[in-house]
Amino acid sequence: MTTFRKFTQMPRKFKNARIIGIDPGYDRLGVAVIEKSLNENKVIFSDCLISNRKETLAERITYLGEEISKIIKKYKPTVLAIEKIFFNENQKTALAVAELRGAIVYEGAKNGVKIFEYTPLEIKVAVTGYGRADKKQMISLIPRLVKLPNKPKRLDDEFDAIATAITCLAREKLSYPHH
Amino acid sequence: MTTFRKFTQMPRKFKNARIIGIDPGYDRLGVAVIEKSLNENKVIFSDCLISNRKETLAERITYLGEEISKIIKKYKPTVLAIEKIFFNENQKTALAVAELRGAIVYEGAKNGVKIFEYTPLEIKVAVTGYGRADKKQMISLIPRLVKLPNKPKRLDDEFDAIATAITCLAREKLSYPHH
Repeated sequence: MTTFRKFTQMPRKFKNARIIGIDPGYDRLGVAVIEKSLNENKVIFSDCLISNRKETLAERITYLGEEISKIIKKYKPTVLAIEKIFFNENQKTALAVAELRGAIVYEGAKNGVKIFEYTPLEIKVAVTGYGRADKKQMISLIPRLVKLPNKPKRLDDEFDAIATAITCLAREKLSYPHH
Repeated sequence: MTTFRKFTQMPRKFKNARIIGIDPGYDRLGVAVIEKSLNENKVIFSDCLISNRKETLAERITYLGEEISKIIKKYKPTVLAIEKIFFNENQKTALAVAELRGAIVYEGAKNGVKIFEYTPLEIKVAVTGYGRADKKQMISLIPRLVKLPNKPKRLDDEFDAIATAITCLAREKLSYPHH
């Protein structure tokens, strides 16, 4: 009877967790989707979205938010990881990036995606194990952490988005919801 | 023939322009809808939305954004007027308000609403004609500028939202789209 049960019991089916990572910028926005399975972590999508400089900030935010919305609907991530803003000298830029972040976090939350936010330092440490690594060092380590499909060229913004998603993989316990 | 034409020509039907005014705050958000008709300007809705302090900023922004979305869908404004952020000493608060603003502007733009933004000074001048008026003076002048339906109590945030919409009425040429 026990044996019978054992064989009729279906193995649990796990859906792979997907993380969308975002490096927010209203000129160039890096976005990447990583799929975490039991065997490997793989970048299944990455891009750098470029907004039209001739448009108003509100228009550019709307364009970028709607593009992110399409990516969320297509790849159905359960988690969104986004870089936190740290204050730099240009307060106007910081506020504009904050507005963009707000629109993206809102779009994610409305789609039922859980939001995680990381500082640039947290991302650096998660990827390189070292808080003072430069961008080159960070980028060189990424292919050791996730499987990257062949792509002729990736912009820095894309790597930053991948690094943000990797940080989420490293720091959070991501559940595998079943089908 | 000319006379005949004159009589068969239908008079143009004008839809009244509606402006949604927003005083953005993630603790308390003031919102008001003003209807501009040929004869008068009338507040047809105003409220102060209060978010749950126990929730994360992302959750609060999502709650407020979705409430604004419902108000836009119900009252169908063609224009959204929102207060601009000016930098105060608390940079963390300024960034959080910027995120909220971004979510609201995004929600408005996605619904085809045109966005206008005003500084606190511009709003003060539009309502009182004087840049150094205090809040009490501003509130006392509002009933002279728009018809206010009876309501037991209005919070300051609501008056600020009404003042923001009044600024838009005063400064922009609002078209009357026909039916």
